[in-house]
Amino acid sequence: MSTFDLKSFLEAQQARVEALLHARSARLEPSGTPSMLAEAMRYSLMAGGKRLRPVLCLSFADAIAQQSTALRAAEDAACALEYIHTYSLVHDDLPSMDNDDLRRGRPTSHKVYGEAMAILAGDALLTEAFGLLASGPEPVRVALCRELAMASGSSGMVGGQVLDIAEDRPAQMDYLTRMHGKKTGALVRAACRMGVLAAGGSAEDLRRADSYGEAVGLAFQIADDILDVTGDAKLMGKPVGADAAAGRYTFPAVIGLEASWVLAERMVADAVAAVEPIEGPGGPLSVLARYMVERNS
Amino acid sequence: MSTFDLKSFLEAQQARVEALLHARSARLEPSGTPSMLAEAMRYSLMAGGKRLRPVLCLSFADAIAQQSTALRAAEDAACALEYIHTYSLVHDDLPSMDNDDLRRGRPTSHKVYGEAMAILAGDALLTEAFGLLASGPEPVRVALCRELAMASGSSGMVGGQVLDIAEDRPAQMDYLTRMHGKKTGALVRAACRMGVLAAGGSAEDLRRADSYGEAVGLAFQIADDILDVTGDAKLMGKPVGADAAAGRYTFPAVIGLEASWVLAERMVADAVAAVEPIEGPGGPLSVLARYMVERNS
Repeated sequence: MSTFDLKSFLEAQQARVEALLHARSARLEPSGTPSMLAEAMRYSLMAGGKRLRPVLCLSFADAIAQQSTALRAAEDAACALEYIHTYSLVHDDLPSMDNDDLRRGRPTSHKVYGEAMAILAGDALLTEAFGLLASGPEPVRVALCRELAMASGSSGMVGGQVLDIAEDRPAQMDYLTRMHGKKTGALVRAACRMGVLAAGGSAEDLRRADSYGEAVGLAFQIADDILDVTGDAKLMGKPVGADAAAGRYTFPAVIGLEASWVLAERMVADAVAAVEPIEGPGGPLSVLARYMVERNS
Repeated sequence: MSTFDLKSFLEAQQARVEALLHARSARLEPSGTPSMLAEAMRYSLMAGGKRLRPVLCLSFADAIAQQSTALRAAEDAACALEYIHTYSLVHDDLPSMDNDDLRRGRPTSHKVYGEAMAILAGDALLTEAFGLLASGPEPVRVALCRELAMASGSSGMVGGQVLDIAEDRPAQMDYLTRMHGKKTGALVRAACRMGVLAAGGSAEDLRRADSYGEAVGLAFQIADDILDVTGDAKLMGKPVGADAAAGRYTFPAVIGLEASWVLAERMVADAVAAVEPIEGPGGPLSVLARYMVERNS
């Protein structure tokens, strides 16, 4: 698959995710959500972004199911993943956390709606993620709820955020990988697993999604840290060196830029190897894995 | 059932809930939750309180199932309800919301652990509530997830909190009942419904739980507002008149003290009538309904 193919594939998948999110978030007011809350939820939800987690979820579901009939649960799962990712950004941006005024070039939720509403919009997005997962009749939905709760809860994403803001963070590789493994890795891995689960994949498929998700999540984070050192501020929408300036531990800071590149490349190779038996050589998932480290924003 | 019986019943049920919450929250660290986060979650979760929602859930399940084998899902549901209630208190107490320093006579979560950790402990409790509901094999668990998400999300509890902090609140009865119906009523009603669902009750049982939960939730809230005017500060753990002083709309302020009493009493009568066919006259649920308006804290 050439670079052009990846671009079209990503654009098509992202447009699909936008349409799914639009349809689901349009149901808020009719089901009794106060309009101000619905507006704050959509403000953050519909702010663009790469939609990486939903795209991974849908790509795995597509690769496994090979037909569109089993995909309603996968589509709800894709949206639920983006609801969770969005709520985590809204809460992370709060004054008592990262205190960020801008997100994707727009004022953050608390700058627009105030701090109380930003907290509540985050709480609502988190809750509605599980509402979406539980909204259909397929028996797999309880497994999807379990998967999402484990990945995004106290031993996953929220736990990772706690490790990231802890005062006594050792600048060590094992702390860094444990922190990222929870903070971003767990949800990326869950995105892959939930696609397989929703599509009725085998235990072997699930193990492959696991390996792929773990490798891709780490590659994505290392690339993020490298971009913070070498990237183009305009493309990224934030100043170069912001992480280092904020005292964040990054892979280049802990193991050096060269070793960070080597590790990211190894992760991509691991990811590609994991999905070849599912989609054949050069399929969308392996191209997506390469994109994680070759993107420029 | 005499007053003495209610006291023993409540104490036994509350002790049961404490044991269930203790067992479930003890699993946090072994499953990978950072210890500081687990500590903050337990600080708020194990702070006592009436455990009203879990007691309602278990009481309905007991009344329907008549045997203890079907109760594992009901016990997870009872704990999930208290996780949700607890997270809502932690977030409501935050400086940007009610800015409360004390809760049940102890410093609030953000006073002890800082604002960032209080937000994250709340997020974690919310997420783990769904993790608990999705932790077992019974097919009913997806319905329990749906029920909890609807009651506690943007059209339920979170939506009610948004209505409560909105600037343009009309001091009118329909706004007040709509706000309370979402903010506290929805979760109380869900507690009753989830007990019936977990125990495999009929559609008729579910309708009765619905009527009971709605009436009891409203009666509870009116009694809260009345206690704020007439109560004993020492028993309640907060000063008399705090709601009125904070500019909150209360039932006595909107319809007067006398009409508030009359309405509360009518709600209790409705609730008692709804559950008599399930448990017979004078059973635990009808005594619980009366307790909502006769308590002094």
